[in-house]
Amino acid sequence: MTALYNRVALIGLGLIAGSMAHAMRQKGLAGEIVGYARSAETRETAREIGLCDQVYDDVTQAVEGADLVVLAVPVGAMDQVAAQIAPHLAPGATVTDVGSVKQSVIDAVAPHIPDGVHFIPGHPLAGTEHSGPRSGFATLFRNRWWLLTPLPETDPAAVQRLTDLLQAMGAKTDQMDPQHHDLVLAVTSHAPHLIAYTMVGVADHLRRVTDDEVIQYSAAGFRDFTRIAASDPTMWRDVFLHNKEATLDILGRFTEELFVLQRAIRMGDGQQLHDYFTRTRAIRRGIIEAGQDTDAPDFGRSSDKDADR
Amino acid sequence: MTALYNRVALIGLGLIAGSMAHAMRQKGLAGEIVGYARSAETRETAREIGLCDQVYDDVTQAVEGADLVVLAVPVGAMDQVAAQIAPHLAPGATVTDVGSVKQSVIDAVAPHIPDGVHFIPGHPLAGTEHSGPRSGFATLFRNRWWLLTPLPETDPAAVQRLTDLLQAMGAKTDQMDPQHHDLVLAVTSHAPHLIAYTMVGVADHLRRVTDDEVIQYSAAGFRDFTRIAASDPTMWRDVFLHNKEATLDILGRFTEELFVLQRAIRMGDGQQLHDYFTRTRAIRRGIIEAGQDTDAPDFGRSSDKDADR
Repeated sequence: MTALYNRVALIGLGLIAGSMAHAMRQKGLAGEIVGYARSAETRETAREIGLCDQVYDDVTQAVEGADLVVLAVPVGAMDQVAAQIAPHLAPGATVTDVGSVKQSVIDAVAPHIPDGVHFIPGHPLAGTEHSGPRSGFATLFRNRWWLLTPLPETDPAAVQRLTDLLQAMGAKTDQMDPQHHDLVLAVTSHAPHLIAYTMVGVADHLRRVTDDEVIQYSAAGFRDFTRIAASDPTMWRDVFLHNKEATLDILGRFTEELFVLQRAIRMGDGQQLHDYFTRTRAIRRGIIEAGQDTDAPDFGRSSDKDADR
Repeated sequence: MTALYNRVALIGLGLIAGSMAHAMRQKGLAGEIVGYARSAETRETAREIGLCDQVYDDVTQAVEGADLVVLAVPVGAMDQVAAQIAPHLAPGATVTDVGSVKQSVIDAVAPHIPDGVHFIPGHPLAGTEHSGPRSGFATLFRNRWWLLTPLPETDPAAVQRLTDLLQAMGAKTDQMDPQHHDLVLAVTSHAPHLIAYTMVGVADHLRRVTDDEVIQYSAAGFRDFTRIAASDPTMWRDVFLHNKEATLDILGRFTEELFVLQRAIRMGDGQQLHDYFTRTRAIRRGIIEAGQDTDAPDFGRSSDKDADR
């Protein structure tokens, strides 16, 4: 495939940027891939494994001459990075980001972007519980959604070019309003993550009464929670602080709903529980039909299964 | 391997009993495997796929002459089944169960068991979100814990013989006190399941405001929840009703903890969130080290990954 951008600058070299580097290189989508990370250790690792063609110690050098700049840092760091790179952006360049929250990233980044540079906020719905420059791999985005929330005044040709890149890396793309994005993600991702973190925290307290048995006998439900709760702490702190309203709204609804089920248990109302669980099972079917998951049974330990079946 | 039991009667022919049938047959662990299910449709399916050597329409005929009887019915059905089969149990036979709650099963079953029959309560920590006679497979128990909660007066030789069978099916075994079991499982399995059911229910409400986008863009966190929340409604209704005290205790702790994090989000206390998430990440490492999961990244859709990587 011919390169879609001549020089792509990845700012932040974690799971997402690393996977982009692998995917773009595998398919020849970028003439040159350069990178920058704030931590010297991350830069060193990235150089060691040859993640990019060049890794810079100075973020302004990384964006110099780039026709695509990808901000792949925690949401809380976007403002500062945007301010640093803004004077060095090439005219006609596209700046995108991969943050899990969109409105607050727009508020933080857009004011810094000079005229003649296209800012197109984005969010790949893809990830694992691993982080850092070694965690990326070329197929992370395959068949996953990559949502773009372009501003009304953005040049459609620039959006199309970025869309072509994302699709060439295997992603499905869609566009939506940033605030709507933040509500949908609060339901499908942000609140579930906070809940998983909470449950794992509760289990940790109990561990003291149960002699590590909580860990030893962690059954399917809890194991899935711990996987979710192992995600990058800095990234998730920023997500919650920057999607505060929607997350608190969903958590409020969640608590109301939990109290209803809790009361049904206390009152011994089996019919109410059964009806509820039957409804949630149907939602799962909807997700399988929407192609966001497969019907294969999962035990929270894929590699065992691969070996066994 | 020589058969460990001459005739094994599986009462209830769902995921667990079906997997036992496959595992025992594969390794020649039982001279004869017979079964019974309350629903005529389940019996018909079991016959059609040859799940057992014989499927009976009458539960008393199934247990006749069996030296191992496995009660694999929802926890709420144990009392009635035990009452029905008790007069037909062979002297010296072992009765075990696979219920997710142990104290209430003991309360329901033990009074029915005649002298000279060994009742050894058990619980395999294994399962998928699928159910029914077609859902079983031989490797379900491999490397999973199978907890036994024998009563103090139980014959150690009978416990050993059952333990040999479970281990021959690939399980790791351990023994514990029934009430302690119920607390540990409330933390690691029962509360997480209720929480997953709740979150999926919340998402369903939101679906109406978000045009199915909640399903379409279900990201990793939520997808794992829906898998958990797709488990068998009858089984789970009974688990909550029969492990009421421990589940309500854990849910109470969970809500307190959630409120602390919710408040940190509202107050913008990033340090508290970051510290909390760092702690939960360490718990995840403990689980991997305890061998209850692997470190392989998971995207909630194993078969895609198998194909892609």
